[in-house]
Amino acid sequence: MSYGTVFPLWRDAAGRAWSDYTEHAFVQALGDGTLPSRAFLHYLVQDYIFLIHFSRAWALAVTKAETVEEMRSCAGTVNALINDEIALHVSICGAHGISEADLQVADEGRANLAYTRYVLDAGHSGDLVDLLASLAPCVMGYGEIGLRLSKAATSDRYREWIGTYAGAEYQATCCDAGALIDSAVNLRLGDRPTSSPRWGGLCRRFRTATRLEADFWQMGLDP
Amino acid sequence: MSYGTVFPLWRDAAGRAWSDYTEHAFVQALGDGTLPSRAFLHYLVQDYIFLIHFSRAWALAVTKAETVEEMRSCAGTVNALINDEIALHVSICGAHGISEADLQVADEGRANLAYTRYVLDAGHSGDLVDLLASLAPCVMGYGEIGLRLSKAATSDRYREWIGTYAGAEYQATCCDAGALIDSAVNLRLGDRPTSSPRWGGLCRRFRTATRLEADFWQMGLDP
Amino acid sequence: MSYGTVFPLWRDAAGRAWSDYTEHAFVQALGDGTLPSRAFLHYLVQDYIFLIHFSRAWALAVTKAETVEEMRSCAGTVNALINDEIALHVSICGAHGISEADLQVADEGRANLAYTRYVLDAGHSGDLVDLLASLAPCVMGYGEIGLRLSKAATSDRYREWIGTYAGAEYQATCCDAGALIDSAVNLRLGDRPTSSPRWGGLCRRFRTATRLEADFWQMGLDP
Amino acid sequence: MSYGTVFPLWRDAAGRAWSDYTEHAFVQALGDGTLPSRAFLHYLVQDYIFLIHFSRAWALAVTKAETVEEMRSCAGTVNALINDEIALHVSICGAHGISEADLQVADEGRANLAYTRYVLDAGHSGDLVDLLASLAPCVMGYGEIGLRLSKAATSDRYREWIGTYAGAEYQATCCDAGALIDSAVNLRLGDRPTSSPRWGGLCRRFRTATRLEADFWQMGLDP
Repeated sequence: MSYGTVFPLWRDAAGRAWSDYTEHAFVQALGDGTLPSRAFLHYLVQDYIFLIHFSRAWALAVTKAETVEEMRSCAGTVNALINDEIALHVSICGAHGISEADLQVADEGRANLAYTRYVLDAGHSGDLVDLLASLAPCVMGYGEIGLRLSKAATSDRYREWIGTYAGAEYQATCCDAGALIDSAVNLRLGDRPTSSPRWGGLCRRFRTATRLEADFWQMGLDP
Repeated sequence: MSYGTVFPLWRDAAGRAWSDYTEHAFVQALGDGTLPSRAFLHYLVQDYIFLIHFSRAWALAVTKAETVEEMRSCAGTVNALINDEIALHVSICGAHGISEADLQVADEGRANLAYTRYVLDAGHSGDLVDLLASLAPCVMGYGEIGLRLSKAATSDRYREWIGTYAGAEYQATCCDAGALIDSAVNLRLGDRPTSSPRWGGLCRRFRTATRLEADFWQMGLDP
Repeated sequence: MSYGTVFPLWRDAAGRAWSDYTEHAFVQALGDGTLPSRAFLHYLVQDYIFLIHFSRAWALAVTKAETVEEMRSCAGTVNALINDEIALHVSICGAHGISEADLQVADEGRANLAYTRYVLDAGHSGDLVDLLASLAPCVMGYGEIGLRLSKAATSDRYREWIGTYAGAEYQATCCDAGALIDSAVNLRLGDRPTSSPRWGGLCRRFRTATRLEADFWQMGLDP
Repeated sequence: MSYGTVFPLWRDAAGRAWSDYTEHAFVQALGDGTLPSRAFLHYLVQDYIFLIHFSRAWALAVTKAETVEEMRSCAGTVNALINDEIALHVSICGAHGISEADLQVADEGRANLAYTRYVLDAGHSGDLVDLLASLAPCVMGYGEIGLRLSKAATSDRYREWIGTYAGAEYQATCCDAGALIDSAVNLRLGDRPTSSPRWGGLCRRFRTATRLEADFWQMGLDP
């Protein structure tokens, strides 16, 4: 299972920030089943708000695409997020006693706001690749976490959550995102992207977004 | 068949600009079959390029939505445009001997560029309602033209084109767009929008976009 | 000294969030001289980064202006921020042993990032008034804090900082911003803005930005 | 007098489009004094509207800058355009009997709208370099035209206009813009920009903007 060739380079360049995020205490507690329900529910509510702004960021990507193929890929993601994933989220929250009306009036946490608005600004201030470098830690990080926990989990408590991100459908989304990143980087930075003057800046964007994702888990633990 | 309550007010405020657009010589020639193939093909190629930037504008609308319902409506349109309508266009062009490769290297006409970039700037400089007022002449104008020609056409030559826009699916798109405009205007201008200080500006946006649509037909006649 | 008519309404609607920000422990410690140098220097470095993104937000306001007067007002602010205030900041930091090179490589704090990107997104997702409602807590809050501390301070330690914001020049900036907000609101919401359907949303934007400003002070205390 | 190293490459790549613009019949008629007053006044009115949107585009550049030096350069231009050049324009128009009130209600020509909105969209869809490649034909084209006519003009009728763009101040603006382009390109494409995969796209942007500038002159001849 591969998320392309550029993503692993960005992940490696992020160093400890990547493991701080993907092996965060919140993640470990999903795996061993010790995560309190209250923390999980708080996370679910914030993740609903997150998905709204994450969808906006993928829609922004459509406006910044340079080829029809890039547009198709991003538009498919927007539609899947808004018309499938948000709906799924509403249903999962409902099963935990949180109504859609509750979700729509929930206060947005600061870590949530910080990450999503950082991503949107990356898109507005730069080009599509700046935006993708900020979106990647979320998309692929959840893919890696899902895969790892599906093997390493010692509890069934959060099996459903883990199964969603370890599942074939979500893994295919990560592969598609990886392919989009590879082709978008190739189109703009050429076939030796690590030699481009933009490489360092893109690695910084990815690392900053990764740190903000770790803050998001922490927000789940500190409601 | 109704396209909502706000659209007819904007249309009436546009005065002669609306009939100059919807009853343009290009439109009449589609109806009586006198439009030369060369003009129709030139139009089809430009319309392909138009759809790309029109999709970007609807994607921009997703980023400017304030409710999940607004997002859903706009995201559905983005997906339909990019993954259905552009594909349909490629196939129609193919039937007329124009390959997708031809489409992708075609030069963008000035009238095309003027209209689409005006719409995108309306979105960036204002809010969702500014953007919708600029998008409406295209969406609803084609709906009105399709309906009228489906009754008034005296030739079968462009029956397929007319049928697309007169058809139930496209008419439903116009009704949905009308409902989106009504609710978006209500949310931002209140239930007496014509009394809002923004009303005049929105009417001007709609009229400017209408004039630019008429230029687009003219471009079809003057390739 | 008045900052206009709309700002006081937004401030009152923000309730305790306003005093949590303008009477934050960091502010009190500026007044009684107990703020540790380390906290002040950390604040100065972050404020340099803040000014960069704050300038970008005022430049975004230029692109969203609807009248030449609005453009003039915002462009004057952009120029003052970038060519005067950032330069002043560099010189103050220099006097405290922090070089411009240090400033340019400093890591951006999360509270800094959260506030500035929230403001930029407010501008991109809405119109000029959404942007101004997010900018106002910073501009006017510093004005109020400066004025209050210039009377209430019990120590001279941070006299220079206090004097900057209590001074005639900065107070005039606040009055200009208040006049800009009043006219921009009048142009878009009419002369009874509190009856507009947008009023609640603007109050929420102002309050969210106010909370993010309080987080910024807290970041100064928790480097 | 040099406008940097990247601009001449873009200009040469534009081929005939560049001379079609800089040696347009409107320009020749400014030089030999045969341009009718009516055409010149029509141009002046449209140029006032142009300056407004051109200022917005330079303000957008501030939001897309990656260094403080880039911000300073763009912000200085925004301020000069809005607080000096627009004012100068109002005064010149006034001398020809066109009041500021007339200017503010003038209808925007299609060629005007096409060029300015194309530039703004170049900025929104790409990065700072995409925006600068679209702005350059205007800035430097006027510089070249001014210099050439100052030597070649056979009539004094439009001496004042020619003198403005041939003058030291405007020429310095062109040199500054050239230096900004060179450093911005170097920062993003490296020191061999013609080998970057982005080079072709930037040349196309420059050429499209050049064609739209030629349309602007034509609009002056066909009011």
